[in-house]
Amino acid sequence: MVLRQKTADLRLQDLNIGDTFDLGDYLMSREKVYAFASEYDAQPFHLSDEGAVGHPIFKRMAASGWHTVVAMQNKLADLWKGTKIRGLAGSGVERIKWLAPVYVGENLRCMVEIADIRPSASRPGRASITMLASMQDESGARVCEMALTGVFLTLDQDEK
Amino acid sequence: MVLRQKTADLRLQDLNIGDTFDLGDYLMSREKVYAFASEYDAQPFHLSDEGAVGHPIFKRMAASGWHTVVAMQNKLADLWKGTKIRGLAGSGVERIKWLAPVYVGENLRCMVEIADIRPSASRPGRASITMLASMQDESGARVCEMALTGVFLTLDQDEK
Repeated sequence: MVLRQKTADLRLQDLNIGDTFDLGDYLMSREKVYAFASEYDAQPFHLSDEGAVGHPIFKRMAASGWHTVVAMQNKLADLWKGTKIRGLAGSGVERIKWLAPVYVGENLRCMVEIADIRPSASRPGRASITMLASMQDESGARVCEMALTGVFLTLDQDEK
Repeated sequence: MVLRQKTADLRLQDLNIGDTFDLGDYLMSREKVYAFASEYDAQPFHLSDEGAVGHPIFKRMAASGWHTVVAMQNKLADLWKGTKIRGLAGSGVERIKWLAPVYVGENLRCMVEIADIRPSASRPGRASITMLASMQDESGARVCEMALTGVFLTLDQDEK
């Protein structure tokens, strides 16, 4: 694992397996947790503290695990902005693990590590990249891990 | 594969591997596609038709693959409502495959098949269930598949 910084001239060929980027924080505010859950995962323990009363796992209103996942995507969508790398499309996800509940008010931190790089044989300048993304809580414990794969390219000199 | 209907008295012990439920439609309206992408996957080709110009895969504004995934969760969150089964928490995801672009205006249909049922050895009435969820377009072609696992229980007689 090598902690990397983004630079304006970063290209696919500059990436190495093990390169890790700190994607910053995501605050699980009550408003965001409620908004996500009411639209995409309307289960009582994601909508209010009252809805978690008697729940054997969640002690109070907890974020949907899917909210944590798309919060990682919120960060991943910005990862290559300001570099010469662009994402074309996601191919798939190899694994998601929800490791611990995420409660309203937690400030999560997103990290992503380059796990594999497979240059396209047919299209120079493109590569399939597998990334290990994770969210950790303020104590540094991981609450969610995901391995996902997408297709990326390096912009030509004249593209932005 | 056996197509099942929900009933008010459906319990974990009534489920069999291969049971399949039709979870209904999800319309990928322009408003929903924009709202999801602007919050969780702000890439140009998910935000406007103009942002997809020149994109090698997407011909026009396309839904985030993550939007299709949480649209499946929107349906899964309601799956056991009106039965004696309840979801406790998601454990993880074994696989997501994005098979085809989803464009603004497409009406997707969600299906879910029970792929595995592992009763808890330590806690009677609980089971870990692996489900294969999918979205298909109006032609019947699958655009997204997901295998996910969660913990479920059967309510006691007096619970709702």
